[in-house]
Amino acid sequence: MASGNTLSVAPPRGMRDFLPAQVALRDWATSIILSTYQRFGFTRIETPVLENIGLLRGAEGGENLQLIYEVLKRGEKLDKAWEERAREELCDLGLRFDLTVPLVRYYSNNQSHLPHPLKSIQIGSVFRAESPQKGRFRQFTQCDIDIIGVKSELAEMELIQATSAALLALGFNNFTIHINDRRFLSSLAEDLCGFSKDKVPLVFIALDKLEKIGQEQVVKEIEFATGGPGLQTHKLNQVLTILSQAKNSCRLIYEELSKAFPENVLSPEFMDPLQKVIDAGNEIGDGRFSVVFDPTLVRGMGYYTGQIFEVKSEGYSSSIAGGGRYDKMVGKFSGRDVPACGFSIGFERVIDILTEREFQPPTKAKTIALIVDPDRDSGKDVLLAANKLREQEAVVSIQPRKKDMKKQLDAFLTQGYSHFCLYKGTEVPLEVKELSTSMS
Amino acid sequence: MASGNTLSVAPPRGMRDFLPAQVALRDWATSIILSTYQRFGFTRIETPVLENIGLLRGAEGGENLQLIYEVLKRGEKLDKAWEERAREELCDLGLRFDLTVPLVRYYSNNQSHLPHPLKSIQIGSVFRAESPQKGRFRQFTQCDIDIIGVKSELAEMELIQATSAALLALGFNNFTIHINDRRFLSSLAEDLCGFSKDKVPLVFIALDKLEKIGQEQVVKEIEFATGGPGLQTHKLNQVLTILSQAKNSCRLIYEELSKAFPENVLSPEFMDPLQKVIDAGNEIGDGRFSVVFDPTLVRGMGYYTGQIFEVKSEGYSSSIAGGGRYDKMVGKFSGRDVPACGFSIGFERVIDILTEREFQPPTKAKTIALIVDPDRDSGKDVLLAANKLREQEAVVSIQPRKKDMKKQLDAFLTQGYSHFCLYKGTEVPLEVKELSTSMS
Repeated sequence: MASGNTLSVAPPRGMRDFLPAQVALRDWATSIILSTYQRFGFTRIETPVLENIGLLRGAEGGENLQLIYEVLKRGEKLDKAWEERAREELCDLGLRFDLTVPLVRYYSNNQSHLPHPLKSIQIGSVFRAESPQKGRFRQFTQCDIDIIGVKSELAEMELIQATSAALLALGFNNFTIHINDRRFLSSLAEDLCGFSKDKVPLVFIALDKLEKIGQEQVVKEIEFATGGPGLQTHKLNQVLTILSQAKNSCRLIYEELSKAFPENVLSPEFMDPLQKVIDAGNEIGDGRFSVVFDPTLVRGMGYYTGQIFEVKSEGYSSSIAGGGRYDKMVGKFSGRDVPACGFSIGFERVIDILTEREFQPPTKAKTIALIVDPDRDSGKDVLLAANKLREQEAVVSIQPRKKDMKKQLDAFLTQGYSHFCLYKGTEVPLEVKELSTSMS
Repeated sequence: MASGNTLSVAPPRGMRDFLPAQVALRDWATSIILSTYQRFGFTRIETPVLENIGLLRGAEGGENLQLIYEVLKRGEKLDKAWEERAREELCDLGLRFDLTVPLVRYYSNNQSHLPHPLKSIQIGSVFRAESPQKGRFRQFTQCDIDIIGVKSELAEMELIQATSAALLALGFNNFTIHINDRRFLSSLAEDLCGFSKDKVPLVFIALDKLEKIGQEQVVKEIEFATGGPGLQTHKLNQVLTILSQAKNSCRLIYEELSKAFPENVLSPEFMDPLQKVIDAGNEIGDGRFSVVFDPTLVRGMGYYTGQIFEVKSEGYSSSIAGGGRYDKMVGKFSGRDVPACGFSIGFERVIDILTEREFQPPTKAKTIALIVDPDRDSGKDVLLAANKLREQEAVVSIQPRKKDMKKQLDAFLTQGYSHFCLYKGTEVPLEVKELSTSMS
């Protein structure tokens, strides 16, 4: 609390108050995304903001597990944990750090009441106790679509089609959807280079930094993490060189790798669908966006099992959407594997870019400030007059008259009003005038 | 966690997963409320779900202060509190228990960037660690409108007009808006009955139960709480008898009380506006709803300073909306009093009633299940076919064909699809057929 009698009025560190204009932009973007996804037959579902802490801690959330906001137990249960000095027992709930873990729990809990396949939309707040920094917030919005119950790559294609339709509707174009497959990466590391299964995650972690630190440094990191230089890292260097020379051609990479490693040809089981999804995406894109094979794309989360995606918008380094297939996650909750695949729009990033572009969401045609003198005008008649104006499809806001009328009209313009009307009692007809900058 | 390898999949106790149909109803109600309020010139604002714990604890939230979900500190700060055995220092954040406390903080924090007056809409989740019971949840939605910066009763009138418009649009009618004024209640207790200022809250607490336990019991409780029977409770009995005889007539009650207590006539400063708001409300209601004076309405929160409201729907005992004026609350945050007044729709109660009535929100005209065989149909062509159907203003969901087609069509009907289309490759034209119960 601040000094004196007043309370501190800032929101918690790393969290935000949204002003009316900011909410208007966010609501517009949300409605565009939502209506696009609904046209594709996705339906919105909702889970609580809080989850049981054991569930969150048990999820393969990667580094997000370090960032959970934990909620204290209450009453006797808290007393008990406190008295027993059981620090691990202090909390029973936590704030969700993403929408995928709650979705999988939700699906497992409600399976018998849900359509199969489930095509879900989730739009909601998630919470991460990160060090506050520019563009990173501790409460932020995610917009996810997921298809649970479809094994075929039709799911990936539909997610790409729907997500790109939403991005196009938001005014994005010239974006690139990067695509890879975790099975391709695993096969490179295990089959082609000969890393043992337990070393594969270490290879992924280093590979993820390729764009940032370059091939030489990545190989050094892998050598360090896997126990020194050897045949594996020699082969890895060979693989990475082929990948960088063959650029983004899935076919070319396949051919070159087959030539270089004839004893270990990559499985068509994941190479064919990959090519199919890339081709379909580019046909749908029709020049408005492109889908490219990105053989070193990794993505952080531990739960991906198949294709993974990331969307980059021209001129912006961080991605505006990402996702992938996670076929083994439902099984952890329900005991039975169900194929699943999702795509998440980085809502805050999208809003940042729209704000940078000074994008203005469309507004209602007519918004009238009905100016009244509260000391003189009887409320009842004012209310009826306002409703009469509203009948003409207008937004009408009753506003107490201020001393400096010129200043007040200027303020209305700034606030987005298009018209004003001075209320002069029931005897005088209402005269709605356009607000214009010439008034000031 | 459950036994075995699987995780418990239920949501936390007292919290809810929402199925697609439930979300559809909630989204419909939200959009009706939001669009109604926007036509009245209110704009949506947003605050974080978390607030600093000191702020929440310092708010006049009545019994809600006992129900705060507290969030554990993190890192070194938590270590320190733990080592020092400082239980009060374990938490730095809490989940909001209402939207009024955050609004007042928000207003104080952002005042210079906000319109004056501020007419805000807030729709969001609030959290209370209540004992779970039927119809009560630990996370639930509130829909509030507030006017900050208007002293005149025009604010109360507009809140009543907008809230009743929203309720009418939701399909409610024959509801009654109960209205009272905290200054009327204080004047009864202090001026007419002679209770000292510090006893007034105790009188209010007992009075709030009048409808439930009756006059005799209320007076007994007040005698007990204020130090035994005496002249004050004798006078209180006299007042309550007048109130119950004069029923809901503001004018009659004023006359009778003036006759009975001629030395302490109630101030026209609050009696006149009360009558004005009641008259205006009834004129606006025009028979669709009514506004009645309810001289023993109290409402729990400590922060009300003027008129208070509560809406009851015919046939339902608990209220569907409530609010009032709280002119002293902004001052606690900013150091300077600003008049404020709000009205909150009990969203969960509204949804309960709509569900009881089996209300179905309107759906899109045409929703098509496009059935494909994932093993045969090339994805690209399916995606293009789906988009072609979407151009006809239809919702189109790609659905993998199941073995039992009859069962699958039945399921589509249940899920709300109106049409289906069997995809048979690019050579065969798309034939959209209506789904009907006769198929099963």
